[in-house]
This record gives sequence, structure tokens and C-alpha cells, in this order.
Amino acid sequence: MCGIVGYIGDKQAQEVLINGLSRLEYRGYDSAGIATLENEMIRVEKKKGRLKNLEDVLDKTPLSGQVGIGHTRWATHGVPSDANAHPHCSVNKEISVVHNGIIENYMTLKDELQAQGHVFISDTDTEVIAHLLNELYTGDLVETIQIALQRMSGSYALAVLCANEPDKIVAVRKDSPLIVGLGDGENFIASDIPAILNYTREVYLLDNGEMAVLTADHIQVMNSTGNTVDKEVFVVDWDPGDAEKGGYDHFMMKEMVEQPKAMMEALMSRCCENGASFAGLKLNAEMMKKINRIQIVACGTAYHAGMVGKYYFEKFARISVETEAASEYRYKNPIVDENTLLIVISQSGETADTLAAIRLAKERGAWVLAVTNVVGSSIAREADDVIYTNAGPEIAVASTKAYVTQVGCMMLLASFLGNLNGKMKKEDAARICHGLMMTPGLIDKALETQDVIKAFADKNYQISDLFYMGRGVDLYTSMEGSLKLKEISYIHSEAYAAGELKHGPIALIEDGTIVVAVCTQENVFEKMLSNIKEVKARGAHVLAIVQAGHEDIASEVDEVWVIPEMDDDITAIPTIVYLQLLAYYLAVARGCDVDKPKNLAKSVTVE
Amino acid sequence: MCGIVGYIGDKQAQEVLINGLSRLEYRGYDSAGIATLENEMIRVEKKKGRLKNLEDVLDKTPLSGQVGIGHTRWATHGVPSDANAHPHCSVNKEISVVHNGIIENYMTLKDELQAQGHVFISDTDTEVIAHLLNELYTGDLVETIQIALQRMSGSYALAVLCANEPDKIVAVRKDSPLIVGLGDGENFIASDIPAILNYTREVYLLDNGEMAVLTADHIQVMNSTGNTVDKEVFVVDWDPGDAEKGGYDHFMMKEMVEQPKAMMEALMSRCCENGASFAGLKLNAEMMKKINRIQIVACGTAYHAGMVGKYYFEKFARISVETEAASEYRYKNPIVDENTLLIVISQSGETADTLAAIRLAKERGAWVLAVTNVVGSSIAREADDVIYTNAGPEIAVASTKAYVTQVGCMMLLASFLGNLNGKMKKEDAARICHGLMMTPGLIDKALETQDVIKAFADKNYQISDLFYMGRGVDLYTSMEGSLKLKEISYIHSEAYAAGELKHGPIALIEDGTIVVAVCTQENVFEKMLSNIKEVKARGAHVLAIVQAGHEDIASEVDEVWVIPEMDDDITAIPTIVYLQLLAYYLAVARGCDVDKPKNLAKSVTVE
Repeated sequence: MCGIVGYIGDKQAQEVLINGLSRLEYRGYDSAGIATLENEMIRVEKKKGRLKNLEDVLDKTPLSGQVGIGHTRWATHGVPSDANAHPHCSVNKEISVVHNGIIENYMTLKDELQAQGHVFISDTDTEVIAHLLNELYTGDLVETIQIALQRMSGSYALAVLCANEPDKIVAVRKDSPLIVGLGDGENFIASDIPAILNYTREVYLLDNGEMAVLTADHIQVMNSTGNTVDKEVFVVDWDPGDAEKGGYDHFMMKEMVEQPKAMMEALMSRCCENGASFAGLKLNAEMMKKINRIQIVACGTAYHAGMVGKYYFEKFARISVETEAASEYRYKNPIVDENTLLIVISQSGETADTLAAIRLAKERGAWVLAVTNVVGSSIAREADDVIYTNAGPEIAVASTKAYVTQVGCMMLLASFLGNLNGKMKKEDAARICHGLMMTPGLIDKALETQDVIKAFADKNYQISDLFYMGRGVDLYTSMEGSLKLKEISYIHSEAYAAGELKHGPIALIEDGTIVVAVCTQENVFEKMLSNIKEVKARGAHVLAIVQAGHEDIASEVDEVWVIPEMDDDITAIPTIVYLQLLAYYLAVARGCDVDKPKNLAKSVTVE
Repeated sequence: MCGIVGYIGDKQAQEVLINGLSRLEYRGYDSAGIATLENEMIRVEKKKGRLKNLEDVLDKTPLSGQVGIGHTRWATHGVPSDANAHPHCSVNKEISVVHNGIIENYMTLKDELQAQGHVFISDTDTEVIAHLLNELYTGDLVETIQIALQRMSGSYALAVLCANEPDKIVAVRKDSPLIVGLGDGENFIASDIPAILNYTREVYLLDNGEMAVLTADHIQVMNSTGNTVDKEVFVVDWDPGDAEKGGYDHFMMKEMVEQPKAMMEALMSRCCENGASFAGLKLNAEMMKKINRIQIVACGTAYHAGMVGKYYFEKFARISVETEAASEYRYKNPIVDENTLLIVISQSGETADTLAAIRLAKERGAWVLAVTNVVGSSIAREADDVIYTNAGPEIAVASTKAYVTQVGCMMLLASFLGNLNGKMKKEDAARICHGLMMTPGLIDKALETQDVIKAFADKNYQISDLFYMGRGVDLYTSMEGSLKLKEISYIHSEAYAAGELKHGPIALIEDGTIVVAVCTQENVFEKMLSNIKEVKARGAHVLAIVQAGHEDIASEVDEVWVIPEMDDDITAIPTIVYLQLLAYYLAVARGCDVDKPKNLAKSVTVE
């Protein structure tokens, strides 16, 4: 969250910065700002709200200069406002910084700097960095930053301009992602690849503690002890069009539509006749023998993929698994040692809490397997083993294609482990692979029902609350469906284990309350029917999702969406697409900004 | 859920039945009804809604007779209505039944009986029983019921009157609780003890499959094969006053006030100088050596006690534990064998899903330890080991004193196991016991702050949504606080791991949304502060709960409740009392019926 971009070269910086920020806006849109440097003078423009507000101001009074930094903000310290927007400057305007992360000791530093006479104009933690650099300035920006970093605790991706050294940008990272883009007579920095994809595909992925000094013609990267590092050039293989809306109203719709292709990429060469196979995976039968504990750690949507993972690890491989939110795992002194397999899931590969969990587990000797979408991301680099979900870039804040590919990979992995430990029959492993190969087609079928879903949404969009219920794997599909709805429509929705409803939450059901009953599992179908009767008896308006063959549920409920008949073990993938579409069309009907939901941001790089 | 009472003797049945139903109303209040039998004629009166509606009718037109059955309903099949209320009768009015449970094959039976000419007037599953008994009647009610039971699948506690056999009541149970009360020239049946506590303290606890034939002077109990069983008399040691409101506006308030005493009873003789001790517990160090898996299974509030249990089992005994909702556990082919310790938690000891989980685990050889409040309950009888919470009878639907004693027992048990396996230091075990002994006093302190809590509630009762957040054990306290609020105030509340808020649900925060931040844990206090800043930046109105010493959080939030300084490992017990009171006063301010919340019922004996 928060987006950073920087430019030095022969173009007007403003144009490059705004272009880059427009591609980073999914990382935060509480405010945006840029600073440019020309004739040893730093000039700043920043505005609360969407990037558009900033662009309107710059249209009237552009900032000239061929070097500059820019920022889109997701607020952590201080409300969204012009004053709290980045870049932040020292009082003498000689230093300007943009920052992603949290400076944890900012209160102490602020007290000290105020005592030294520095006047603060924002509530942010970032502003202390500008004043601190100004206070410590030795005449050499690189040296000054190195000294200042000794004083700062927390996480940061920083980019700094200094009026006295107008030919450079200095950037440094710790626990927040930052990349350097390599151009011809120009160079870039950015918090994420899409920002610079229009200008270059050659990048350096900065490691923790590394600092980059950019001039128009040269890039020097140093490690935390100040020694120069030889960086490998990483060539991005995305199509620039992947990060464009391409005719769709929203990235979210584009990415939902891309799900069949994403699933195919995720499954390709991994779904074999005799079960799952992962080329390049180091984890093998010999290593699995000493593993006596498996933990899955993730956040948000990826956490739900982890719940599905747990379900199938237990079902296919008969291995107990704990799935936990990364923010809880890392602070509870988890039981983890050299006999533990830790599986982490993260679309961006930069999720701060998940990264911290990896480090803790590795310190104690665990084997870490990462499931992520971004090649070269911090999590991919720090894990012992990586499975890439191959979903292609995901821009919309509400994750869709990343989720289905995460679920697909977890199912494959469960079947892979069941094969390794001999707990899964060959024919079952083949059945799962066969079922998974059907999912791209089944997702297509789901996408074809958009009219029905849109009509339902258009009729019901004024609701303030919505409940989902399910049993078994349908519970996790319900949880993910509920999260999608929350994220983009601001309807207060909640998912419940159907058998738990009567232990409390059923009190919230009143006449007309919509309850989405996900009923794709034959073994609990009758039990779901009983739960449906319970909520119907309290006046609920029930929408049931069932496989073909169960159309007769129509007599018990108010609305039925019939999904094609399929193997019960793969329903989690096609079913979520119906719930994604439901969330999407409810949000659109309510006039919400689907791609940039209120208060949220993608790639959660703060804790 | 659903309450059953029956009487045969020399008193007017109506009076005894109504008195009994009034004490069972916490089990359901969608409708109530009674049937009496006089001069070989069955007469029925039943009304939708509270018992009061029925009483009003009976005041005008009483039912005479010295034998009768009564029922309060929690709707499963069919909406609450006069027609769906129990008792149900055969068309010729010769058979009348009350029923608790679900007849799973009722549709098949109904089709068949309709084909035979029986006319149905309700939507319930129960009505089929009346028609079926009528159809099969052989001239002998006991024999007829035995034949009919062969045809019925599902769960039931049944009581039957037959006009041709006016000197008896026949009752039978399977997977739904039923007791027989022994009087002098009179006898009783009831689904729970409070119903008959005013008349007798001597009861038989019917086992699964047992049938009781009651006359005024005699009780015969038979097992499912028809052989007479010699039942042991169980003497209830409750004070009848325990099941009375005793001057409080609501049972819930009375029970919250009783929490210090309940905690003392739960801890007494178990909290020792050197750690926890459980007299009579069979589980010992030898047995623990072969245990390689611990699972905790429960529903609703007890599930939250199970989450706290997991947290402390892992912290004190360094044993991984899975906590799962019983309705999920039983249908997922759980990994459970003779090396598994299954711990179940249930206030009533009759929770249907939890009971099913016990049976499944025992079949596979697991050792089952039950934590329950009701001596002689089904769960207590079927488990291998029992820890009683000793909270005394809990009548309010929203559990309070049962919860704190469950949490206390889980902490003691965690420390007991930590001692058994040597993972907990002696001084830590002593510290926990010392801390727990302080909790009755700390709960008293919490209860003394009622005015502050009431004032907050009176100011904010019109909210439609509320969020709780916490980290570590505070998360589970938040979850339980949120459930309390849902249950009795119908405010849509939700509890989140504070670090997960930004992965989605923060989208729901708007100007003025109340967020209760539970911050009792020192190790994550700074992290909670960051999360508080995040929601404040989105306009939230934050109420923080902190231990004394952290009053300075006031500058960051809108409201602070300071709880006394205490050991971080016992905060789960006093802290929940503040949240119980918050739920209570919000519900009272909204005019809700605190003891009988909409749609809910205590003792969930259907799945």
C-alpha cells in the first residue's frame, strides 16, 4: 500500500510521475503528490483524494524539471488531507521525501526535532524523515541518509530529493518493496512494476537494506554497510496491456473475465494424468518424512485460500494443518521448528505480516514454501520453495483471479502431498486433476450467467446487511464471497458455518434479510436444507447455489442459481465466481468505485 | 431448544404445565401450547408468540384434567404460528404429541399418510408423528409407539397422550434430552430440570432410546428392546431460587452479577499453590504420553472459550490444538484416532452437534474430556472424563457466567497439561493460579463500572453496526463480545483480528462508526495503536479497553475504559464482563427482550 515513483532523465518528470502514479493508484488513493527539482529548487504539489484532483491542479500550474518523485497515499498516521499528503519537505525546502511504511519511533524523533526548532505541518510519521535529514545534512545526501537510518526504526521504502544535489535521487528500502527501472539516459524507481512498464522492462529488485543512487546515466546500488552490490537485471515478461483496462469498465471485471486463462496458466504442466506435479519444487518425499507439522499463514483473501488448503490437505493427505492470519501468527510465539512446513500465500509477495512470519519461521529452522503471483517478490525470494500462481498482474484491489489460482494451487499441492505420503489413492489424485482441468470451462459458464446475477443485484442493491452460509468447503467460499462484498460494496456482510447460525447470529435475520446459502456439497446437502428452513422460518429471503440435479430446492427457497454438475471437490473454484459477480454488480448498482474501494489498498505492506 | 413438560397426578394439569413452561421458555418462545386429557377426551390450546398469549386464552377458557403435556417451540420446520404450535393431534383427536428434535424423513412419511387420507394442518415435521401413531394404533399405546419408532429417523424427545388410555403419559427420547420427575402420587416429564424444580428434586435421566410410561403412582422405564431398566434416582442439588430472577430485571443481569461466585466455584480446590489440579480426572501423565493430537470442539459461545483454550494450550503446554465448530467437525471426516484427546465444551451438556462429535471420536478410539455445566447431562455421561464448570443454572439465552467459568477451566487445564508434560515452569503455573484467584474480585470491579457503560450505551444505542478488534487473546474476547451484542441487541457487529482489518473490512468504517479496540496485551499494544490510527484516519469513533497504566491512550481515541492492572494471561475473564455489560445496556436501551432474544433459544438440541 502507498505507491512511490521517481524519475531522472531528459523528459519532463511531471509527465512520467503522473503516468506512473496512475498505474499505482490501486495502492492507495487517499491523496497524491509530486515534487520536482529544477535550478536547485524543489517544488511540490499535492492534493487530498484521487489522483485526478492533483492532475487538475497541475493542468493549470505544471511543475517543470527533469527529476522528481511522486506518491499515492493509503493513510496510516493522520487523516487523508492536503497537509498529510506526500512528498513531505524540510522547512527550508531543501529536502523532499516520499515514504511507504511506518516509522515506529516517530513520536520520539518528532519531540526531539521540535525541540531543535523544526516546525511540523502534518500528522504523519513521514514528515520526521524530511526534518531529520535536514538536521543531519552533512553536504552529502547518501552519507546523511546512512546516518539518519541508524535513528529510524520501522519499515520504509524511501525516495529523497535534495536541492543541493540536483542530479540524483536516493532511494532505500527496509520491509517495503522498491524497484529500480533501467532506462537509456533515464532511470526510474517505483514501488511496483506497473508504474514503469510503459518505459522499461529491465529492473533491479532491491533487497532489504539496499540503497540506490540514481543519476540520469548511472545507478549505484549499495548494501546496508555501504558496499556496492552487483545487481542482476530482472526482465519483466508481462505484456504492458496486462496492466491496462482493455475496454472493460473496471479492472475487477477484466480480471474476473481473465480467470479461465489464469486457471489454465496455474494448472499447466502441473495437472498430470497421475496427479499433481510441481517442476522445480525442492520439497520431496524424503523431506516430508521429517515434517510433523504444517502451518498455512496468509492475510485477507489469501487466508481464505489457506482455509480451503487446510480442508483439502486434511481430506487428501490426512495431515492436520493450522491456517492462521499472519498478523496473529507472528506475535504469538507460534510452535514452529525444523520439522515444520510453513506454507505462505500472498498475491503480491510483499504482504508485510506474511513476510515477517516467514522470517520468524526460518529463524527456527522451518521449511518455507511460498505460493505467490509475483516473480521476484520479497516473499518469493525469501522462501525456500516457491509455487507461482501465474495469474498475471492483478490490479483491482478486490482479488479475483489471484484467489482462484491460489485455491487451484492449494488443491494441487494437497493432492501432491497425498501422493508423497501415500494417503491418497492414485485414482483420486487423477480425479482431482481431471476435475481441475474442467475449472476454466466451468468459470466460463459462471461468467455467462452475468445477466441473472446483475438482475438480482439491480433488484436488491439497497440492502444494508447480507449473510452467507455454508458447510465444509462451502463455508470458505462463503467467507471469501462475503469479503468481496464488504470490500467493494460496503454492505455489512458476514459468512457463517450454517450449523453455527442458530448459536447467535440468526438473531439478526428479519423479514426479507438476504441469506446466500452455498450448497454444493452432497454430503451435507440435507443439513443445509434444515438450516435453510430455520432461516426461512425467521423470514429470510434465501438465494441457494446448488449443482445441477438439485433444481427442486426451488420449492424451499426464494431464488436458485444452478451451477453445472461437477466433482464436489472442485466446486470452490467455479462457485466463488458467482459470488464475485454478485459483489461486483451490487457494488456497481450502488454506485461504488469498484476498483478503488473506500479505505482499502492493494499489496498491504504495512502491518 | 424447544421445551417439553408433562404431568400426571392429582393436581389440575394446566397449572403445573404452565408453571413448567414458564421455566422452560428460554428454550424457545415462538409459540406455546398444552393438551389435557379428561373423560377420555383430549383438549388442546396453543398460541403463537410468548407463553403470555397462551395464558391469556387459558384465563378465559381453562382446560381441566389431571394429565397433560405442554410445549414451547423454537421453529425449525414452518414459521411460528398457531397451526405450527405443539401439541399436534391426529384427525380423530385421539392422539396428541409434543416433540423436540427433527424427524428427518418426515416428507416421505407425510406423503404416505396423506395417501392414506390423513389431513395435515401444519407445516411441521411433528404432525406426522400424531398421524402415524393414529394409523398404527393397535389398542396399546406403548406397543404402537415402539412400532412407529421403527419408521422414524432423526432426533426426538416425545411425549404422547392417548384418549383411549387416559391414565398414562408415554415419553421416549433419542438425541434430545428428557427427564422424568418423581413425585408422591404424581409424576412429571420435562426436557430440563428447572421445569419441575418447584415440585420435585428426584429425577431419572433418560438415556438414548429409553421410553418411560408414567401413571400417577408408577414409572416404568424400558430400553429400546422393550426390557425394563432399573434407573438410578438423581437428586438435583440446585436451590430452586437459582432458577428465579430474584429481583433483577433480567436473568442475564442476575447471571452477570453471579459471575464472581461462579468463578469461585469453578476454581475452588482446583487452583493450588503449585498449579492446577482436577480431582477425579482420569487423564494423567502416562495417558498424555500417547496423545499426539488435541482437538477442541464446541458451538457458539463455548466455541470462543475453546479458542481461548487453544491459545493457552499452545502458550502454556506448547501443544498444537485445533478448535473447530462441532457442526463442521462431525461432517468432515476429521483426523481422529486412539491417540487423540478430544475436549468438548457445552454449557447445557446437550448440544446436538457436540454430542455427535463425541460419538464419532469415541468410535475411533479417542479419549473424550467434557467441560460442561450440567451434572448428569448427555455429554457428561458419554464423555470419558468430565470437568464441571460449577456455574449454577444459567437461564438467560445469552451465556455469561457459563462462559467465564469455561474460560477459567480451559486456562487451568492448559496449565495442568503444561505441568504434566513439563513445558510450563512451576512459577508460571503458580502465577496463573494466583492470577485466576484474582478474577472474582476483578469481575466485581467490572460490575462496578455499570454506570459508565450504561451511559455509553444510552448515548450510542441507535447504531446499526459495530466492530470489535483485538490481537492475541483479545481477539477471542472480541469475538465473544460481538456475539453477545448480536444475540441480544440485533446490532450487526463483527470482531476482527486487528491486523486483518485492512485486508477488507476497514472498507465498512465511516465517520462515526464505533470500533471497540480491546488492548489488554502488552506485547501487541504498540501494534494495536497503529491499527487504531488506521481506523481513526477513516473516521471511526474508537472505544479502547486498556489496563491501568495505559490511560494516556486517551489522546489517541474517543473513549477509554481502564480495567485494573492484572496479569496479561488472565485478562480474557474480567474483560469479557465489560463487553457483556455493553451488549446488555445497548440491548436494554433499544428496548429488546434481553432474556428472550428474537429467533434464538438456549440449549441447541437440533443440528
